[in-house]
Amino acid sequence: MIVYFNGEYLHLDEVKVSPFDRGFQFADGVYEVLRTYNGKLFRFESHMKRLEFSLSELNINFKVQDEFETISIKLAEMNKLLNHNFSVYIQITRGVQFPRKQNYENNLSPTVFVSVSKLKDISYQHKRGVKVILEKDIRWARCDIKSIALLPSIMAKTRAIKSDAYDSIFHRENLITEGSHTNFFAVKNNIIYTAPLSNFILEGITREVIINLCKKNKIKIVEDYVKLDDILQYDEFFITGTLTEITPVVQIDNFIIGNGSPGKLTILLQKYFYEYINSTNSIR
Amino acid sequence: MIVYFNGEYLHLDEVKVSPFDRGFQFADGVYEVLRTYNGKLFRFESHMKRLEFSLSELNINFKVQDEFETISIKLAEMNKLLNHNFSVYIQITRGVQFPRKQNYENNLSPTVFVSVSKLKDISYQHKRGVKVILEKDIRWARCDIKSIALLPSIMAKTRAIKSDAYDSIFHRENLITEGSHTNFFAVKNNIIYTAPLSNFILEGITREVIINLCKKNKIKIVEDYVKLDDILQYDEFFITGTLTEITPVVQIDNFIIGNGSPGKLTILLQKYFYEYINSTNSIR
Repeated sequence: MIVYFNGEYLHLDEVKVSPFDRGFQFADGVYEVLRTYNGKLFRFESHMKRLEFSLSELNINFKVQDEFETISIKLAEMNKLLNHNFSVYIQITRGVQFPRKQNYENNLSPTVFVSVSKLKDISYQHKRGVKVILEKDIRWARCDIKSIALLPSIMAKTRAIKSDAYDSIFHRENLITEGSHTNFFAVKNNIIYTAPLSNFILEGITREVIINLCKKNKIKIVEDYVKLDDILQYDEFFITGTLTEITPVVQIDNFIIGNGSPGKLTILLQKYFYEYINSTNSIR
Repeated sequence: MIVYFNGEYLHLDEVKVSPFDRGFQFADGVYEVLRTYNGKLFRFESHMKRLEFSLSELNINFKVQDEFETISIKLAEMNKLLNHNFSVYIQITRGVQFPRKQNYENNLSPTVFVSVSKLKDISYQHKRGVKVILEKDIRWARCDIKSIALLPSIMAKTRAIKSDAYDSIFHRENLITEGSHTNFFAVKNNIIYTAPLSNFILEGITREVIINLCKKNKIKIVEDYVKLDDILQYDEFFITGTLTEITPVVQIDNFIIGNGSPGKLTILLQKYFYEYINSTNSIR
């Protein structure tokens, strides 16, 4: 596999990350995951805007330009993925600092890593829905930054997989925030609810697409927390993400939701979502 | 410089960390920092016990044996540090997993990295004391695990350095927890206070040494939180850590503590600490 590393296109096994890379020693970096539809990077500009935000919040000196579009296409070409839809992983760390010390210097050269992968078919999951489990949100209070400090998330995701679930959904006290790598939505009486933007959730790009699709199609959507105590009073649930798209939730812990099939409004939103994706103006 | 990486002693620039190392992509790893006194690793067993705890909390399959003592001594020898006191940095990540996915597989081979450094002389800091700044503790709720997910800590440490301070001291609501890489102590009416062990602080090895020295020398020490609201009612402050040892705090934000010099009990504890270190039974 060919990947991009600090300006070069290399075989994966030629890449040499330094053990003094601050990404390796301190989780001092950020990332983005993009994907294509119909061969085009979906919402490229939104991803770049969020990447800029994450970099800026961490004072990492890296100026995002359009390079990641070129790099992604070139990587797809080199890896013979141009005939498939593929995902793009971009990671930028603050760079290498030697000797080790916690505080960072301002003059470091960021480390830039990009790789592409063929997308897996998860259409069965979109049709049947998935189980999720509920977990206490023990993450830090800056979940709005898409940083690589993902330890609590990957532990939660692994517990989910071990429980035959797709994801863990977090709650801070009584408020449901988001999944370990997804945004969370609930439906009651034909109104959709999702956590408001704050330092406790990531501003999901699919989340934003959903909100706009709801507005366009006169579906009422409210940015307000679902409360843990009330969760069984909702009619439908779904989770969203760049690779998750709109995935119905049909089981939460041991509770089967409704009749165990995706909800009506969830299915309608999936339809709007795919229509939108196949429309020309959705790209970029 | 020669470092240890996955069973080999290599020149630093020969080390090749994979960009798919889970330490690099997810902060999925742990670390320890040790130091020598009189040529011997201080509290080696305590560090190994804590390392085992961190690994076990994250389900990283690595069995700690006495190898890190041998590796440290060999690295010191190869780097011509045997005539100095030196520090040892040990990092263990869950290993390389390809392709990227959040949840981990159980069969990964952990990545092991060890490096040694000559210790800097910070005796002026022990004599004069340092400034610290106060910050809201926005870290995750498992600070008892010594993980490499250090992003909030390194951001706080950098803000401290930019404010001409040595460290940031965190508070959760009104309770002072610890520094970004130190434990925090306060003195009032000859009684010493430090935060109790919990998921909100790291069980510092120097912290434990201090508690034992206090007990041995009939100095009253209470494991209870210092409250942010009351902080100016205390007489003395100090912070501790493997490399920080006992460092007096003489300024908190803009407040000069006492007459701006290290407190009496702090100086007495420093004396007991060095006596202890120079006694033979302190090693291991």
